[in-house]
Amino acid sequence: MAEQSSDLEKALYSLVTNFHSAAGNNASTLKRDEFKNLLSSQLPNLAKTSGSEAGMGEMLQQMGVKDGEDVSFQHFWSLIQTLATNQFGLLSHEKVSKCGCVLL
Amino acid sequence: MAEQSSDLEKALYSLVTNFHSAAGNNASTLKRDEFKNLLSSQLPNLAKTSGSEAGMGEMLQQMGVKDGEDVSFQHFWSLIQTLATNQFGLLSHEKVSKCGCVLL
Repeated sequence: MAEQSSDLEKALYSLVTNFHSAAGNNASTLKRDEFKNLLSSQLPNLAKTSGSEAGMGEMLQQMGVKDGEDVSFQHFWSLIQTLATNQFGLLSHEKVSKCGCVLL
Repeated sequence: MAEQSSDLEKALYSLVTNFHSAAGNNASTLKRDEFKNLLSSQLPNLAKTSGSEAGMGEMLQQMGVKDGEDVSFQHFWSLIQTLATNQFGLLSHEKVSKCGCVLL
């Protein structure tokens, strides 16, 4: 990656390489244990709520992963999208409430 | 954001705040000029190919933005998703070819 990459380019690259690094054996999908390790190291708060077998099963289902299937980049991306959309909602509320405070 | 955020959390935060920072006036959507500025500063390579009015029109259409509509976070996210998927494809090819070199 070029040295002068923008913040947004770095962020994109980071998301993609995080997934790649978690996959063993040059695979393009993650086994469930690899996905669990990725969650523990990169999304520890989420890993706590999905720590139980039932919690993990529910999360995988929401990501569109079928029973016995490995986790593809598309599955991973649907999780990232949910997190980003939630984050966007949180920041929007902050922005609006800050604005409200200034106006009062 | 907490100091000890993971790379993946930082990347997510960066994507969301980049969009937020580009929006003027506490808005939750970007006007076309704001979106163009975001592209120029954060995705300069893409900005080159979409520099013409026709190129920009095509990109907005692919992102699902209708005529006269502002750019929402969901629209922006569909662009990010395309870029991430392309990047993932590129890295997968690199990985495979590296692996091939070792095996040969």
